[in-house]
Amino acid sequence: MSDLFWPGDERAGSLLSDAAWLAAMESVEAAWLAALVEAGVAPAAAQHPVSGLIGADDVASIATGAESGGNPAIGLVALLRRRLPVEPARWLHRGLTSQDVIDTGLMLCLRDTLHRIAGEQRRQLQTLIMIIETHGDAAQVGRTLTQHAVPITFGVTATGWLTGIADAAEAVAALLPTLPVQLGGAAGTLAASTELARLRGLDRPAEVSWRLIESTAARLGLAARPPWHVARAPLTRVADALVGCTDACGHLAADVATLSRPEIGELAEGTGGGSSTMPHKRNPALSVLIRRAALAAPAQASVVHLAAATAVDQRPDGAWHAEWAALRDLGRRSVTATAQTTELLAGLRIDGERMAANLAAAEGVRAEQRSMIELVRGEPDPDYRGASTLFVHAAVRRGRRLLEETT
Amino acid sequence: MSDLFWPGDERAGSLLSDAAWLAAMESVEAAWLAALVEAGVAPAAAQHPVSGLIGADDVASIATGAESGGNPAIGLVALLRRRLPVEPARWLHRGLTSQDVIDTGLMLCLRDTLHRIAGEQRRQLQTLIMIIETHGDAAQVGRTLTQHAVPITFGVTATGWLTGIADAAEAVAALLPTLPVQLGGAAGTLAASTELARLRGLDRPAEVSWRLIESTAARLGLAARPPWHVARAPLTRVADALVGCTDACGHLAADVATLSRPEIGELAEGTGGGSSTMPHKRNPALSVLIRRAALAAPAQASVVHLAAATAVDQRPDGAWHAEWAALRDLGRRSVTATAQTTELLAGLRIDGERMAANLAAAEGVRAEQRSMIELVRGEPDPDYRGASTLFVHAAVRRGRRLLEETT
Amino acid sequence: MSDLFWPGDERAGSLLSDAAWLAAMESVEAAWLAALVEAGVAPAAAQHPVSGLIGADDVASIATGAESGGNPAIGLVALLRRRLPVEPARWLHRGLTSQDVIDTGLMLCLRDTLHRIAGEQRRQLQTLIMIIETHGDAAQVGRTLTQHAVPITFGVTATGWLTGIADAAEAVAALLPTLPVQLGGAAGTLAASTELARLRGLDRPAEVSWRLIESTAARLGLAARPPWHVARAPLTRVADALVGCTDACGHLAADVATLSRPEIGELAEGTGGGSSTMPHKRNPALSVLIRRAALAAPAQASVVHLAAATAVDQRPDGAWHAEWAALRDLGRRSVTATAQTTELLAGLRIDGERMAANLAAAEGVRAEQRSMIELVRGEPDPDYRGASTLFVHAAVRRGRRLLEETT
Amino acid sequence: MSDLFWPGDERAGSLLSDAAWLAAMESVEAAWLAALVEAGVAPAAAQHPVSGLIGADDVASIATGAESGGNPAIGLVALLRRRLPVEPARWLHRGLTSQDVIDTGLMLCLRDTLHRIAGEQRRQLQTLIMIIETHGDAAQVGRTLTQHAVPITFGVTATGWLTGIADAAEAVAALLPTLPVQLGGAAGTLAASTELARLRGLDRPAEVSWRLIESTAARLGLAARPPWHVARAPLTRVADALVGCTDACGHLAADVATLSRPEIGELAEGTGGGSSTMPHKRNPALSVLIRRAALAAPAQASVVHLAAATAVDQRPDGAWHAEWAALRDLGRRSVTATAQTTELLAGLRIDGERMAANLAAAEGVRAEQRSMIELVRGEPDPDYRGASTLFVHAAVRRGRRLLEETT
Repeated sequence: MSDLFWPGDERAGSLLSDAAWLAAMESVEAAWLAALVEAGVAPAAAQHPVSGLIGADDVASIATGAESGGNPAIGLVALLRRRLPVEPARWLHRGLTSQDVIDTGLMLCLRDTLHRIAGEQRRQLQTLIMIIETHGDAAQVGRTLTQHAVPITFGVTATGWLTGIADAAEAVAALLPTLPVQLGGAAGTLAASTELARLRGLDRPAEVSWRLIESTAARLGLAARPPWHVARAPLTRVADALVGCTDACGHLAADVATLSRPEIGELAEGTGGGSSTMPHKRNPALSVLIRRAALAAPAQASVVHLAAATAVDQRPDGAWHAEWAALRDLGRRSVTATAQTTELLAGLRIDGERMAANLAAAEGVRAEQRSMIELVRGEPDPDYRGASTLFVHAAVRRGRRLLEETT
Repeated sequence: MSDLFWPGDERAGSLLSDAAWLAAMESVEAAWLAALVEAGVAPAAAQHPVSGLIGADDVASIATGAESGGNPAIGLVALLRRRLPVEPARWLHRGLTSQDVIDTGLMLCLRDTLHRIAGEQRRQLQTLIMIIETHGDAAQVGRTLTQHAVPITFGVTATGWLTGIADAAEAVAALLPTLPVQLGGAAGTLAASTELARLRGLDRPAEVSWRLIESTAARLGLAARPPWHVARAPLTRVADALVGCTDACGHLAADVATLSRPEIGELAEGTGGGSSTMPHKRNPALSVLIRRAALAAPAQASVVHLAAATAVDQRPDGAWHAEWAALRDLGRRSVTATAQTTELLAGLRIDGERMAANLAAAEGVRAEQRSMIELVRGEPDPDYRGASTLFVHAAVRRGRRLLEETT
Repeated sequence: MSDLFWPGDERAGSLLSDAAWLAAMESVEAAWLAALVEAGVAPAAAQHPVSGLIGADDVASIATGAESGGNPAIGLVALLRRRLPVEPARWLHRGLTSQDVIDTGLMLCLRDTLHRIAGEQRRQLQTLIMIIETHGDAAQVGRTLTQHAVPITFGVTATGWLTGIADAAEAVAALLPTLPVQLGGAAGTLAASTELARLRGLDRPAEVSWRLIESTAARLGLAARPPWHVARAPLTRVADALVGCTDACGHLAADVATLSRPEIGELAEGTGGGSSTMPHKRNPALSVLIRRAALAAPAQASVVHLAAATAVDQRPDGAWHAEWAALRDLGRRSVTATAQTTELLAGLRIDGERMAANLAAAEGVRAEQRSMIELVRGEPDPDYRGASTLFVHAAVRRGRRLLEETT
Repeated sequence: MSDLFWPGDERAGSLLSDAAWLAAMESVEAAWLAALVEAGVAPAAAQHPVSGLIGADDVASIATGAESGGNPAIGLVALLRRRLPVEPARWLHRGLTSQDVIDTGLMLCLRDTLHRIAGEQRRQLQTLIMIIETHGDAAQVGRTLTQHAVPITFGVTATGWLTGIADAAEAVAALLPTLPVQLGGAAGTLAASTELARLRGLDRPAEVSWRLIESTAARLGLAARPPWHVARAPLTRVADALVGCTDACGHLAADVATLSRPEIGELAEGTGGGSSTMPHKRNPALSVLIRRAALAAPAQASVVHLAAATAVDQRPDGAWHAEWAALRDLGRRSVTATAQTTELLAGLRIDGERMAANLAAAEGVRAEQRSMIELVRGEPDPDYRGASTLFVHAAVRRGRRLLEETT
């Protein structure tokens, strides 16, 4: 996959692609059918592998057919039933509603997306720790509100990046094991599966339905949870975590773009981007594309919240449907931005001499220190770096701990 | 094209597709090259048709290659040069920069998008006028803040829709002839084409460059305009117009969804959507999908404004790149929502008897009237419809005028 | 007024303040009452000046009381009736609904807001023309994607600003004469005023109601328009225009902030901001605060569109209420940002020598030109400024024309 | 405090008011000064209570003065120094920068805001559990995409609300103990306090600075954390939690507004809102105002993320400044919406008979069940409520557990 309107999109591979979502929905049907048989709700004859029955070739017809019913699950179920033997076909999807398949399938895709991001963040933490070990002591001028402030080190700058990425990575790591299935049937009561359990003579049919949730969740590697058709926090949390990732990348890229301005020249991307008319140009192309994602992501995430905030009845009339593309776009673009950030860090050129020269040329960076000396007479510290080493080391330790915890 | 995450997307056809954008960029290169030759900046031997050299097969490679330079124009130009004879290849793109090709190509795609929307809006106005003529006098209960207010007619409700669509359509119609080319060269000075004109011995080379803008604009059917690399109102206006369209559709769809609740039952979609588990369901599927677009569009448009608001230098470092997908998504989804609205109106079932029954059952809808009678004694008007006929007629006249003006 | 959370807010004075909105609502009641009497709907005895009856002291009680009815008009009307003589009190507000008073009052406040912005934009255009005349020829290096591109002049940079402001100012000027009253009565039919006209024995009572709209609009200096309770384009257009203004200011401020980085040093604010700990700091405080507004405005405007997009029935159940604060905040903050931009431009320090030095030190800025010379042999233009003078002059002419048209 | 443009705002009391923020900033200065003395960085003579020195009367002058420096801390420090004895005045704010005071002061205000919300949520959970116990078994028709689906109980509807509120409350509860101080000095190195510690002859001056953070955090009841000037996750997490609260309230209010439509009539607010012209109206005023907040909050939260995503250098040039009002508005409006929801629930009128009648009149709600009977022959369950009781009980247990944990 690629997207001409979003250069770099192919980095997200097939994550949250049409085909991936369909395959995820197919696996939800498979897990539910297996759970039905296992629980004795469906007869043994209903058991059948549901895998690979739907392929990339089916995407267009299911997508086009999705409009009439308002969602792609209806067409998927119809197609699966046509391709399954009679008895499995009869039992497929029994007890479920479209939203169950769509929500849970989306959750599977989002899990893969977050896993991929977590992997990128691990690499970023590793690279940043290495960068700090190598260049962390380089003297640099601190800049606030675009102006020179006081001396810092490049370690302080990189610690700001590491902190941002660690914050984002912690949120992703905390979220991953909580991603739930959504299985509620037509209106969140699992009435059909409970009815089937009753008709089949099973004890405590409602508890059978709950076990169907647990069993399906276990098969899919998701958490069990009562239906949440209209209580959408499980999805807004994903949106929050994803935009947290682009926030961290955006901050880092803004620094790289700024510090690679030729007049500053402290940083440069490993291989800058070219120009269609200026042969000399070496643009910070990755930073630019990461910044793009960071600018767009908050609005995208706001749509997921808006959908949650306007949920109504037992299934909303539009809000639910607005979630899919918003999460797809937010997910793929977060992956792309995160992967670009990994590459950016891996190739980052750090010019310690230019940093030193800029600091030396900076006027007024000792003004604050002079105020302190007026307060308590004494010899000024020639470095005036405060507790920066301590903060840098603390951040590195935090990064290392995170790497150990997420292995 | 179709999009599993956005049912109905295929209604937008190839508008703003990867291939359409590439073809539009190709036509920008073609027009500029022809303008160069016509003006004598390039030699006659440089003339060559630039059309159909790039096809759907090239999309993936150009899209993938777009990351390294940060945009797809670089790869496009390289490919075109490989596929053109030597002399045209040498002159292709001379004087332009990537942004010129991308912005102007995008503008061409947006023009086609707005044209399509304008056509849908014409159909909507026609249908609405017909609906009002047929059902406009049906008595209905006015509802405010979800509660019954005073009597209205269905004509009043439909006039609200017509007004919204007319407002949106007027904005689109006013915008269409103003859509400009963006041609400025590397930093908005057209330095290269001016230099070439000078080297080729042409009089007043700067004016030659201006004529290149005019001539290219004329070939493309866009308006001439000095470079606007970082003054992005031409694009924010398009975003405003597009979200204005989804606003109007969203309001209409919200009414249809509400009034087709079974307890109200005054409206129904021609062919409701089905369910994967409930055979009886007749969902207002079009209304639901239109509402989805209306919920998401404002956030999408905000990204285009944000890009304008953070533009910097002679080409921004990320803000520019955020515009493309935001406008693509906003454009395609506006087309889809508008086309769905056309179909919704064409098939709308209006139940005048149910409207009358609901009005008859409504308590308190004469309370305001009674207050008026207390003020001026007399016989109450049995209809109490106020100036509704006058307002409805005014809206119909406005719709007719708009239809005439945009023929 | 001032706002600790939004430094500079006092620049917006009492525009869109609680008291200003109340006063505007009062004047809507006054104009409608006068129109009722003039049309003979109300008796002559109902005539009474309605002005100054509500003051700043009433704000808190009306605001607090506004929750129970969901809007402040109910409390306002009750208070006015208590403070008017019997007969005017009996006739006050007859025929109107809360939304009429609130929408039209808001429109009056927005008109004043847009007028103020238009005045600031006039000053900005004047200053920019002067700046261009004085410093427009200063050689500068063009920057794209943060990197040096080709030579430009400071006139080109300032022309980008002027174009942005002219685009925004044209939109404001086009909008101002179209701002309409919103008068529709309980459900958009003007049933009550039509009923009163009928009971009072007036001819063609519906036309009397339309004349009430025209007469009220004329008294308030707004445009007449049929009711638009749920067709909210008149408000989304204002939001679009306002965010267009902050877009233009934001772009300008981003340039000033960037070019006043000490390593670049081409621009500086007249009086930079200080620091609480670093005595030497001269921060581009105005640019920073303008950028803040530009970052926040698109999201604010998106709320106004969202409200339009989710309008339902004859008055929406929440969407309407979301408009007020969104437009207030967007309006006041746009005024503040615009006024700060006026001051920023008036005091802007332009360092032509530093620009020249940066250009001289820039590597590769002749690379494009060399490509052109390879194409057509000859002597390179020592300036290589292309058509910049022509573009700058065109922008200045446009600015002058705009100043003449808006006098 | 009240806000005419946001009815109900007074429910937020002085939370996040100008005066509250100033007082919080004053307490940050107080805690830091005490920490300086305690650590021996400042002499004992510098100790002085810093409390109540700044009052409501100072708000306007500090707010107005805030523009020149770009933030209100500069004026606050100047004023405090004028009002303190010489030695404390000399030592006040030493080692800090404006951002430290502003960020940490804001965090204190946000903590109070979240505490207030947590209290409201406790009351909501209690009321909901009671409602479910009393009315949970009432038969209701499930509605999906506006249409009748299958039977549910009102307990299922209320469980959806409870789940939403519990999700939001858990996030708030998890966040509260993590809210950190932000103390970094001019550029995040605590250089000045470290320098002072060194000059005063203290051992390991960097560690002294870290202890200053710990000690100040302990005094303020916040968590210690290394500086996060440009790594803004601590604030985006607050924004995410706040919008999570309005999401939950919005969903609940959408249900109440819908189900209190007269044609449905299953719910009603305890005391509906009146009308300025229709004496009979009983509007669901609280639901309407809650929905308003839910529509606006996602956009507001997106600004906080945007600020994080565009953070640059050691203090951003605009992004930082955009956070304050966004968080203030989001915070106050979340409190208002949450408090309105508490009241809404407390007064909610539940009409079980109407629910039963609507269910009885609903066509097709047994269609799914019939499909199940076709699959497994047998007697249909007359209730067909599936596992609803089990899900409702699970939600109630979760609510109870949450109430115990947060006592």
